[in-house]
Amino acid sequence: MNVREQSLKKHAEWKGKIETVCRVPADSAQALSLAYTPGVAEPCMAIHNDVEKSFDLTRRWNTVPVITDGTAVLGLGDIGPEAGMPVMEGKCALFKAYGNVDAYPLCIRSKDTEEIIKTVKLLAGSFGGVNLEDISAPRCFEIETRLKAELDIPVFHDDQHGTAIVMTAALINALKLAGKDKSEISLVINGAGAAGIAIAKFLLDFGVKSITVCDKNGIICEGEPWLNTPQSQLAKITNLAHMRGTLADAMRGADVLIGVSGPHCITKAMAGSMAQKAILFTCANPVPEIEPQDAKAAGAYIIGTGSSANPNQINNVLVFPGLFRGALDARATTINREMMLAAAYGIAECVTAQQLSPDYILPYAYDKSAHQSVARAVYKAAVATGVSKLR
Amino acid sequence: MNVREQSLKKHAEWKGKIETVCRVPADSAQALSLAYTPGVAEPCMAIHNDVEKSFDLTRRWNTVPVITDGTAVLGLGDIGPEAGMPVMEGKCALFKAYGNVDAYPLCIRSKDTEEIIKTVKLLAGSFGGVNLEDISAPRCFEIETRLKAELDIPVFHDDQHGTAIVMTAALINALKLAGKDKSEISLVINGAGAAGIAIAKFLLDFGVKSITVCDKNGIICEGEPWLNTPQSQLAKITNLAHMRGTLADAMRGADVLIGVSGPHCITKAMAGSMAQKAILFTCANPVPEIEPQDAKAAGAYIIGTGSSANPNQINNVLVFPGLFRGALDARATTINREMMLAAAYGIAECVTAQQLSPDYILPYAYDKSAHQSVARAVYKAAVATGVSKLR
Repeated sequence: MNVREQSLKKHAEWKGKIETVCRVPADSAQALSLAYTPGVAEPCMAIHNDVEKSFDLTRRWNTVPVITDGTAVLGLGDIGPEAGMPVMEGKCALFKAYGNVDAYPLCIRSKDTEEIIKTVKLLAGSFGGVNLEDISAPRCFEIETRLKAELDIPVFHDDQHGTAIVMTAALINALKLAGKDKSEISLVINGAGAAGIAIAKFLLDFGVKSITVCDKNGIICEGEPWLNTPQSQLAKITNLAHMRGTLADAMRGADVLIGVSGPHCITKAMAGSMAQKAILFTCANPVPEIEPQDAKAAGAYIIGTGSSANPNQINNVLVFPGLFRGALDARATTINREMMLAAAYGIAECVTAQQLSPDYILPYAYDKSAHQSVARAVYKAAVATGVSKLR
Repeated sequence: MNVREQSLKKHAEWKGKIETVCRVPADSAQALSLAYTPGVAEPCMAIHNDVEKSFDLTRRWNTVPVITDGTAVLGLGDIGPEAGMPVMEGKCALFKAYGNVDAYPLCIRSKDTEEIIKTVKLLAGSFGGVNLEDISAPRCFEIETRLKAELDIPVFHDDQHGTAIVMTAALINALKLAGKDKSEISLVINGAGAAGIAIAKFLLDFGVKSITVCDKNGIICEGEPWLNTPQSQLAKITNLAHMRGTLADAMRGADVLIGVSGPHCITKAMAGSMAQKAILFTCANPVPEIEPQDAKAAGAYIIGTGSSANPNQINNVLVFPGLFRGALDARATTINREMMLAAAYGIAECVTAQQLSPDYILPYAYDKSAHQSVARAVYKAAVATGVSKLR
């Protein structure tokens, strides 16, 4: 039985990867009068008089829904809201296991940008933050941007920023090993969907200067007729040399290749054309852009993939539990760039100089201390940048 | 410190009456590959191919949101969505403690009927059922009616039907003691909001023939100029003698008075004007329509109130956990009248002939066997009426 068949069997046994539990006594009339009526009227009125108290008197402070419309689930595409639920529930389970965040999955039966925004806004009083998940591009950009602007709780689209953060963490440590400087490297991203665009923007903020992004049509360059709106914006800040051509052209001489695209689109020859001590993060799931052994054979120095079957799994599981833990603990009103950068450094720091090797650049996803490190770093950054509402 | 002050203190300590927990291992790469990527793709595709499988492969089968807009919270009125959360969370805690249902609170920042309906419909793929709570009349009628018609999972407005069911359970046992027949009694309801109207309709289905409903303007009678739409409909099926007048007029000679109105609107004289072996269920919260000792002094035979401080607490906590447990276990597509009547009998049966007395007509709310009795009865009724989708 392969892992997918095993997983199906387990899901049928589990009948749910999360569960709600009761935290209060309910075994006497006295207990009921405190947890429920008539006593509960008092915390209700306290919140009525000061809505901020909803973070003190209910579970709101620790509650994050994982919200999807089911349009971009894993590599499976638009499989529908209910079909996305096993992934959302899985994230909720990991939110709890690694970040002690109370998360629950909400799938929305609409692909309409405005309807999705409206639904989340109407429910926001129930939550301490919002995690958006597996919503297809370009709608995900508008949905996240609008919700961040219009809500005063953290909103985070994990497919964009979780991926960007963990990729940056991997790059921090890979560059240490390769002895290269972020401001001097040439970096190529293949895949210009939600993740690729977010990675490019985040790496620019991080300090990489030369970034070239490709999609299936080739290099993203200002003026190409096939660019969509987010790609056009990206063309203004990447590929400043205005190179036109294919992924193979872009990769020639590059120091770093980040793949968030599809299976086997990189050949040995393309990997071999990169600079010395080449770094390849080929994260297409479940089949990477190039098999690790082929990249190795072509001379790659450090290889990371999305799979736990190979060394250097680059998975945003390393990000979201600690990131929200830190943001919720700080009662942050948003998740800003500084908090996201802090998360990347928080992950990278978990690998000591002694541990660091081409086959070990990131902590394991199930290493709880890594999530704690992220949470601490994000909390500090929230306080330092003045977005904490702790009082 | 009174119960409300104690409750506020407890809420500040608890910081949430419910919590989400992780039900699966997450401590190894292997565990992650089963609960999350890549294995999770298989249950996703299984649901994509047959949406009904979302009830087998995720927690959907056991999940019920408690949804409010915060407009009719306890006796506090329109205090806002966030301020209603302590009540919703309390219900979620009791859903788990008594029915093992995974419930979570969702407050909606809108009072618009269509927006509330739309929001619930868009999210319905995440749930096994929907509990509507503390939404003011008359909007709650339209919201529940539409959602029942448009969704294929159970939808239940607890303030209406939970109250009607527990009141009927109390009446079943009170009539046994009084030696009166449901088809022969004269019954008065004071309060013609969501609860009062639902109680009247349900008691007609139950088999009471003579029902007169009053609100603050007096007896609801066809042609009265002050009736709203739901009250006009009610006037066609109650008060068939077309009596006009006040609550005092309605109560004269009545066998049963059900109060879901306000504090101290019934005098000793009014209680004393009722028939022999009068039954008074005075459930206004926190102050009843008449104090129990005053009703007793006026000759009342059986008195029930909403408070746990007096004998015979009549609280819908006795209903919703078992009702949803039974409906979810049956994978019912709706909650129909037969299931609701079964719930009422399921509660009433928990008091044995030996136990039954004027001071003990209902089981205690924290008696788990009562909730199990409700669940069994509702499950059987769902199967018997063909609304179970079990396969």
